[in-house]
Amino acid sequence: MSGMRFTITKRMALPCIGRTGVIQTPHGDIRTPAFIAVGTKATVKALTPEQIGATGVQAILSNTYHLYLEPGERIVAAAGGLSKFSGWGGPTMTDSGGFQVFSLGSAYKRGVTKVARDPLPELVEESGNSNRLARVDEDGVEFISSKDGSIHRFTPERSMEIQHVIGADILVAFDECTSPQDPRAYQEKALERTHRWALRSLQKHQELGGEQALYGVVQGGKYQDLREYSARTLAGYEFDGFAIGGSFTKEDIGTAVRWVNNILPEDRPRHLLGIGEPVDLFLGIENGVDTFDCVAPTRQGRTGALYTRSGRINIRNARFVSEFVPIDAECDCYTCRRFTRAYLAHLFRSEEMLAATLASIHNLRFVVRLVDTIRERIETGGYEEFRDAFLARYYSYSSA
Amino acid sequence: MSGMRFTITKRMALPCIGRTGVIQTPHGDIRTPAFIAVGTKATVKALTPEQIGATGVQAILSNTYHLYLEPGERIVAAAGGLSKFSGWGGPTMTDSGGFQVFSLGSAYKRGVTKVARDPLPELVEESGNSNRLARVDEDGVEFISSKDGSIHRFTPERSMEIQHVIGADILVAFDECTSPQDPRAYQEKALERTHRWALRSLQKHQELGGEQALYGVVQGGKYQDLREYSARTLAGYEFDGFAIGGSFTKEDIGTAVRWVNNILPEDRPRHLLGIGEPVDLFLGIENGVDTFDCVAPTRQGRTGALYTRSGRINIRNARFVSEFVPIDAECDCYTCRRFTRAYLAHLFRSEEMLAATLASIHNLRFVVRLVDTIRERIETGGYEEFRDAFLARYYSYSSA
Repeated sequence: MSGMRFTITKRMALPCIGRTGVIQTPHGDIRTPAFIAVGTKATVKALTPEQIGATGVQAILSNTYHLYLEPGERIVAAAGGLSKFSGWGGPTMTDSGGFQVFSLGSAYKRGVTKVARDPLPELVEESGNSNRLARVDEDGVEFISSKDGSIHRFTPERSMEIQHVIGADILVAFDECTSPQDPRAYQEKALERTHRWALRSLQKHQELGGEQALYGVVQGGKYQDLREYSARTLAGYEFDGFAIGGSFTKEDIGTAVRWVNNILPEDRPRHLLGIGEPVDLFLGIENGVDTFDCVAPTRQGRTGALYTRSGRINIRNARFVSEFVPIDAECDCYTCRRFTRAYLAHLFRSEEMLAATLASIHNLRFVVRLVDTIRERIETGGYEEFRDAFLARYYSYSSA
Repeated sequence: MSGMRFTITKRMALPCIGRTGVIQTPHGDIRTPAFIAVGTKATVKALTPEQIGATGVQAILSNTYHLYLEPGERIVAAAGGLSKFSGWGGPTMTDSGGFQVFSLGSAYKRGVTKVARDPLPELVEESGNSNRLARVDEDGVEFISSKDGSIHRFTPERSMEIQHVIGADILVAFDECTSPQDPRAYQEKALERTHRWALRSLQKHQELGGEQALYGVVQGGKYQDLREYSARTLAGYEFDGFAIGGSFTKEDIGTAVRWVNNILPEDRPRHLLGIGEPVDLFLGIENGVDTFDCVAPTRQGRTGALYTRSGRINIRNARFVSEFVPIDAECDCYTCRRFTRAYLAHLFRSEEMLAATLASIHNLRFVVRLVDTIRERIETGGYEEFRDAFLARYYSYSSA
């Protein structure tokens, strides 16, 4: 019996199937919909826990694969678990490690790579990708450490053991995240295996006990029948919630999410993995997503791409060097209250570390506040007006 | 008439010639002795102004050379001056640019280099260093930008113009910082020129007006007669305070500082440029230094070298990976109150930016608190006992 509880507060009117609610965890509540910040290696890059909290972020998602390699799950456990180790203190989530492991595998060098190394020559071909650093079999996946080249094996059972020890509030079943370029035949085969791994993850999770919650992962690529089949299959298992994985094209997101959420049981939370562009947040929420995580706000911020109500700007652009106004005059973040575009431009041009900190604070606050406003508008009215005005302003400028 | 006032609160008993006091500036007071943090490019690397303030730092020193090249002094001025541009708000100081320019010149590739580029072939030899990127003449110095290779000229008048525009509370006269390897004949020649530049700086400063204070720079290398001659010469000019420049060997610092401070007028503050090792702080203060600046705490911190009461540790060392205690149990800094050595070790091993932030906070707080404690002990008694206990513990471990 997990220590997580999900309560729905308000439902949107059809045709939307979105809702607001609260996910209660042993480390605190998450009001949904919510944007969850990514803290890959038990740190949201360049930010202290207080700086993260000040953006309104309610929970952090860390990566099992990275924490397993460094510092190792035993160190995190000995520190009292992820939330304590990182100093965050609030709700946390870990992914299964599947995305990172498979970005070395069938998806390696095909556009979803996160970690690069030379491939092991002896790795057997299965998906037709000769560059991969990981090999999938029925039992699990063998991969080469991006840290030191050593060989490791993840199975559903091992992923659950590691995640239990890391100690996040919400865990994710071990799955295979396929590449959009994989042929349909491979997608079908991988999906069946992901379903078997889901069951094995669940069984191991129940065996390990404790109050952590486990989410099953819906896959199925761009195929409606596979997505619906995946949702039906996982809906029959005793997961505490569901994550929606895989790559989407921009136009697909709302549609694919809806296929799935029309089937998933309404009383359990749904997390959309790795998605966080403003338009995607609206589409996801309208189609029943409760939580999101995405590296985009912080990663883009570190390159100088900053969000404003009127679209994204590149602060390295020459015109910002002498603009003595905040990044976004309507923003209430620390960066906008205290610093000018000119100072940010200077920090980026000087390659100062504070640039990454201030930009991450701003972009995180922007996205968190957007989702918070959506939640408020769903609860108190005026959602459509807010959405239409926001998107018209944000994207008209961006595409100009 | 500058807006700076210096009041001596208490004098140490002879043989020490140190004192405590207050430097009042238009942006606030500095209780002395004080450690001033270095914010080279209008940012103390990896720290927000609030994080700097929380370490107890009372003032920040930025580099004229760097701000002149990026973002340019006009941008800083248009923002309302250095303190406002950087968001710091408190007292600030700029150096003359001399050290950076000369680290490209006679001292280039001789151990005091801060900025590296290929030398201009046509640069004339004067000090016997064929690698240099700067050329000194009576009027000033010509140098190659470390940013884009363009050629620039600093003179005493130009340095004062730039510093006035940048708008710090305390400015420093343009000087030549020689290399310890320069022959005595060159040191003598450079010193005479530095004195002529001091007068030219002062004249230009008075002509420009305003409430900024100007410090003259005592040079003279390792030679007692030159140091004393320099102090006597500058003491005759209307500087608001004095900076002591140049390189010292470890054993020299107390002695060389004393030569100078025995001569400089007692009623004006003395700043020791670029020195900040714990033992040097004690020696400097006992011998009459009021303020220090040094990049060491933050620069060393960013490499993982962390100060503790029992000496410096390298947090990258394997043993710290599983030490779930603060860096220094007696430290009251944010990092020590919130995080363990194990977490810091993880951040450094993962090359996370937060490592630099947390390490800089700790090392800055360590040095600031040390100087603050020295000040308290001078004022309320027990200085010698504190010094002897601190140094015995700090250096016995470090040398072990």
